[in-house]
Amino acid sequence: MLLTSLYILGITAEGMSGALAAGRHNMDWFGVIFIACVTAIGGGSIRDILFGHYPLTWVAHPEYLAIVCAAALLTTRIPFLVERFEKAFLILDALGLAVFSIIGARIGLEFHPSGAMAVAGAVITGVFGGILRDIFCARIPLVFQKELYASISLMIGSLYVVLEFISKNYFPLNEDLIIIGSLLVGFVTRLIAIRYHLGLPRFEYTPKNQ
Amino acid sequence: MLLTSLYILGITAEGMSGALAAGRHNMDWFGVIFIACVTAIGGGSIRDILFGHYPLTWVAHPEYLAIVCAAALLTTRIPFLVERFEKAFLILDALGLAVFSIIGARIGLEFHPSGAMAVAGAVITGVFGGILRDIFCARIPLVFQKELYASISLMIGSLYVVLEFISKNYFPLNEDLIIIGSLLVGFVTRLIAIRYHLGLPRFEYTPKNQ
Amino acid sequence: MLLTSLYILGITAEGMSGALAAGRHNMDWFGVIFIACVTAIGGGSIRDILFGHYPLTWVAHPEYLAIVCAAALLTTRIPFLVERFEKAFLILDALGLAVFSIIGARIGLEFHPSGAMAVAGAVITGVFGGILRDIFCARIPLVFQKELYASISLMIGSLYVVLEFISKNYFPLNEDLIIIGSLLVGFVTRLIAIRYHLGLPRFEYTPKNQ
Repeated sequence: MLLTSLYILGITAEGMSGALAAGRHNMDWFGVIFIACVTAIGGGSIRDILFGHYPLTWVAHPEYLAIVCAAALLTTRIPFLVERFEKAFLILDALGLAVFSIIGARIGLEFHPSGAMAVAGAVITGVFGGILRDIFCARIPLVFQKELYASISLMIGSLYVVLEFISKNYFPLNEDLIIIGSLLVGFVTRLIAIRYHLGLPRFEYTPKNQ
Repeated sequence: MLLTSLYILGITAEGMSGALAAGRHNMDWFGVIFIACVTAIGGGSIRDILFGHYPLTWVAHPEYLAIVCAAALLTTRIPFLVERFEKAFLILDALGLAVFSIIGARIGLEFHPSGAMAVAGAVITGVFGGILRDIFCARIPLVFQKELYASISLMIGSLYVVLEFISKNYFPLNEDLIIIGSLLVGFVTRLIAIRYHLGLPRFEYTPKNQ
Repeated sequence: MLLTSLYILGITAEGMSGALAAGRHNMDWFGVIFIACVTAIGGGSIRDILFGHYPLTWVAHPEYLAIVCAAALLTTRIPFLVERFEKAFLILDALGLAVFSIIGARIGLEFHPSGAMAVAGAVITGVFGGILRDIFCARIPLVFQKELYASISLMIGSLYVVLEFISKNYFPLNEDLIIIGSLLVGFVTRLIAIRYHLGLPRFEYTPKNQ
């Protein structure tokens, strides 16, 4: 199935990006594997824990865990290649974000009829891996300060919910079409956001009495 | 119901305080919303995950999530007002602490007949939101070093357990009375602790061989 | 039962080491208790949450929580003794690592027939307490950069799976023997790793464009 192939591509790319983050902090191989796993499958794990949606994907399918570990260790051997193909990585990361968001939206939709949890599920699955990666590296998550990222998940989740709603109530749409449509819109928007440095407004607050 | 209204007041106040913490780290709107949600509903979520008490409150009631998000975004528009009414905020935060603790105690009581989990539930619900807020801002949690806070939750949880025990075995008490009594004692103690800078003793340990 | 006694010894030692870490950051008594609990029972809690293995050990047995809290508060009274017997602590910590890993492996084995989750369960139970301790102290986890630690859990988990497999399919072995064997091998390897500063290779990555 298309979504599964894209998911495997997504966790591989996220695992490699996690391994590089671990390398920036000069971690050992366990640190590299840990940060890679957290980056690649942490978002989906947090989503499933918050929803009580058991078993977690990688518990039922340890082969996904093995893929991420292999990608992480491979990255320690070829960091120069990863650097060389930096742009390809940004594209894979954008694809991963879109795929994770769609998967999160589909699972979230089961948990509340309103679609609110589909949107929450999309955002949690899309961004929590990166948030955990940064927390375990003891720094403020990048996703709170850089180009549009969580907003893409929110957009994908909302679009998916709207299309599902239209499909059910007004005009039957093919499920694959809904998935590919939401995915493409999110993917392209992410690339545009990176290219033009589009970000959300910042909130700067400096307490007077400090 | 009284507890629900106070709960909504509590998550609103905690959400706004979380938004200010995000502003201190110059986060974007997503960071503001994320830190606000974690501060307001993180404690209850951790409690429910630890107890396996599903569904989480905000999954069943996405409107609570919406209230926190709205409060967070509103805070980015009116930080000066929040600063102006700093004292009102301390009072709302104290109320939030008391309400969260009572709710945690009530849920925890279901999980162990001894009342030990009621006390643990009170503390977890009362303080974990603030702990997560600080972790996601990459700093040591304030609650480990400042005025009595977790101790208030512990006190509220213990008082609630004792009153429930008395009510069941010796002298029937009205449930609302037990709630309001525990809540008031905790609320007032917290205000006294802030006013007189009452804190727990510190433990300072400097290893010799460093 | 042997494993239970060793478990209690393990959480006591880990709780005391957590209390010392809190003391290094000059935390108050609540911080000391919190960090001690997270260090001692955090790994098992994360394992059970990831597997959906409810109730958590300390929810069903609050006495374990009480032991850790008592050990933590005791540590604030006698830090000099702990320092004096530093070597005894390293030995207790190595024992704790081995015991936690075995327990994690046994629980993980229930969740996937391949044994992959037994290994994952061993590692998560063995190291996640220390990781959480460091995260709540806002620093990069030690276990990502120091002597063999997670690798010991991995070894214990793998050995346990292999012995169980042999016992079931080829040559019946006594369960206690399997436990004691895996435990001893892991314990001794950990002591050797400390003695000779054996660690995993590091991955150092410095992006060029920074």
